[in-house]
Amino acid sequence: MRRITVEALDDIALGAAVLGTGGGGDPYIGKLMAQAALRRHGDVELIDPHELADDDLVVPTAMMGAPTVMVEKIPRGQEIVSAFQALEAHLGRPVRATMSIEAGGLNSTTPFTVAAELGIPLVDADTMGRAFPELQMCTPTLAGVTATPMAIADEKGNRAILQTIDNRWTETFARSLTVDMGCAAMIAIYPMTGRQVKETCVLGTMTVLEEIGKTIRRARLVHADPIEAVRAATDGFVIFRGKVTDIARRTETGFARGEAALAGTGDDAGQTLRVAFQNEFLVARTEDRVLATTPDLICMLDAETGEPITTESLRYGFRVAVLAMPGDGRWRTPAGLAVVGPGYFGYDIPYLPVEERMGAEGIGSDGPSSGSA
Amino acid sequence: MRRITVEALDDIALGAAVLGTGGGGDPYIGKLMAQAALRRHGDVELIDPHELADDDLVVPTAMMGAPTVMVEKIPRGQEIVSAFQALEAHLGRPVRATMSIEAGGLNSTTPFTVAAELGIPLVDADTMGRAFPELQMCTPTLAGVTATPMAIADEKGNRAILQTIDNRWTETFARSLTVDMGCAAMIAIYPMTGRQVKETCVLGTMTVLEEIGKTIRRARLVHADPIEAVRAATDGFVIFRGKVTDIARRTETGFARGEAALAGTGDDAGQTLRVAFQNEFLVARTEDRVLATTPDLICMLDAETGEPITTESLRYGFRVAVLAMPGDGRWRTPAGLAVVGPGYFGYDIPYLPVEERMGAEGIGSDGPSSGSA
Repeated sequence: MRRITVEALDDIALGAAVLGTGGGGDPYIGKLMAQAALRRHGDVELIDPHELADDDLVVPTAMMGAPTVMVEKIPRGQEIVSAFQALEAHLGRPVRATMSIEAGGLNSTTPFTVAAELGIPLVDADTMGRAFPELQMCTPTLAGVTATPMAIADEKGNRAILQTIDNRWTETFARSLTVDMGCAAMIAIYPMTGRQVKETCVLGTMTVLEEIGKTIRRARLVHADPIEAVRAATDGFVIFRGKVTDIARRTETGFARGEAALAGTGDDAGQTLRVAFQNEFLVARTEDRVLATTPDLICMLDAETGEPITTESLRYGFRVAVLAMPGDGRWRTPAGLAVVGPGYFGYDIPYLPVEERMGAEGIGSDGPSSGSA
Repeated sequence: MRRITVEALDDIALGAAVLGTGGGGDPYIGKLMAQAALRRHGDVELIDPHELADDDLVVPTAMMGAPTVMVEKIPRGQEIVSAFQALEAHLGRPVRATMSIEAGGLNSTTPFTVAAELGIPLVDADTMGRAFPELQMCTPTLAGVTATPMAIADEKGNRAILQTIDNRWTETFARSLTVDMGCAAMIAIYPMTGRQVKETCVLGTMTVLEEIGKTIRRARLVHADPIEAVRAATDGFVIFRGKVTDIARRTETGFARGEAALAGTGDDAGQTLRVAFQNEFLVARTEDRVLATTPDLICMLDAETGEPITTESLRYGFRVAVLAMPGDGRWRTPAGLAVVGPGYFGYDIPYLPVEERMGAEGIGSDGPSSGSA
């Protein structure tokens, strides 16, 4: 157990912006909400998952919706507590701690608001190891943990408790309600026992995020290359450097979808990279080859400052470095790929681990080449 | 208190088909479900609302969705009980009785399934005095009674409890979930005290429906005119007789919408009547004048047999009589018209009580002319 301060949230949010892979909502908003709550109520206790008793009840909390809308519609903080409390009342027993469902974006920090407001700890873990756009895309799903009962609430005072036969139906219903609620809603979901958290979640998330954030901050302080710092801290690869030449985005069925085109610079001059996204970056490919796909992480950082760039803040002319990092091993299994692989998102591209794509192509110089190279 | 038998349900369903004003779902399906339940569990106790204690808890049950779909997707009966039980569990205290939300269509009889399966009484009342397409269109809404908490369930085992800030939001959320559930779902809604039922609902509904059904059945037996029998039993007007020449229908956002065109016969020869519907018939007008609008009831009956015709069974060539009947007085107030008047459904037509429209036009010969004639 250790305490997370207002200052530590700066590093965590910065790390979350990297692992947000362009989505997960603007981490700046989640951070502002969480920091305001910490200023009102004091630091938040971060507990190691192994400090949980097997029968402790843990309820992750999150914001759901299109990031493009969330930026316009900043939550007051109380509605996420309201979602949490509605689920706790439904469950009929006290919840020991809250948790993040995503390691990336807004939702890495939103649960700090709940923890601070209610004086409960936050578990150092998440259910994705990155950000993903849909509710069933959580490692507990792969282990048969159900997302429901879940609570969903809006800022107007509306709320619902959902109970579904599988986690894909949870996503369907919650997405429809989120759209009705104005494309942004607060949720409390995947109620789990301490044992389920330990066995089915990605552990140590907040510590990793804080470390990534610190790495970038330190690199800036000493005028080191923040891109290289992030690459090293994440076992990643710099797959492309370029300038944004085109960006198409639309908000549909509650998601921010689109594609960005980048003209290569430096070693990549003459090449064009297209990066497709649905809230998060999903596929990065040049004219003739695929460089990385979901479930591996694709991140875009400002080429100079290393500042992570979200899909909704991406603009023409931005000079960026595109990084790719290995996704959690559970996502790389056939069962994991069925839930979050390129095929699920409609791309007829076989999944290959990014380290194999990089190694096999002989451009693994930025990182370790894989055994298949 | 009296008992409703399998045979009595024939009359009730027939009466419900009349007051269903073309919508409310096919009463035949509701009847089959209810009769099957009565055969398994015995007759259902029908209680007068005045037999309810003020603090008794009553939970109406219904099927929600596009009638066009409900015909294809007949419920098994257990899912409506599941919706009722989910709400009862959420409320945390035993429910004394169930009730119909609509006097028309499928939902007049679906609650008999719940009453029979659970061995609880059904209250002789409803919340519309007819059928309407949306959940907020219930007389308790006008008295400030909230539709939530409500439960919604599908045949697959999915369910949700909704808690909304007003009854319009209840409709929005429940409609989205109904669409996700395949355009047909079972609901338990408007939990009320006995006192609220007595003060805010339309009372004596089942008795009225049974009487209308009996009237038609008797008219057929003695070869009397069933159209005139229905008109007399409902204080209605025969506003048009004709043949269906065109019918346009589409299922969108969970509703069956469309319009039927009728070429006049007999006294109405040379005239064309257009009847617009959204699940229920809403507006009936000729080229040059409006004959009737919501919230008054517009019913289409087979010209020979008096059999009520639903919007989804309506076909080219049908010979029909169109009847109009005064809606419940509460719907005719400014507050009522704001919820179910022509303007709400997008028609730029002032509401005039059907008896005024008929009287003022001097064709009130089929019924009492109003004082304004």
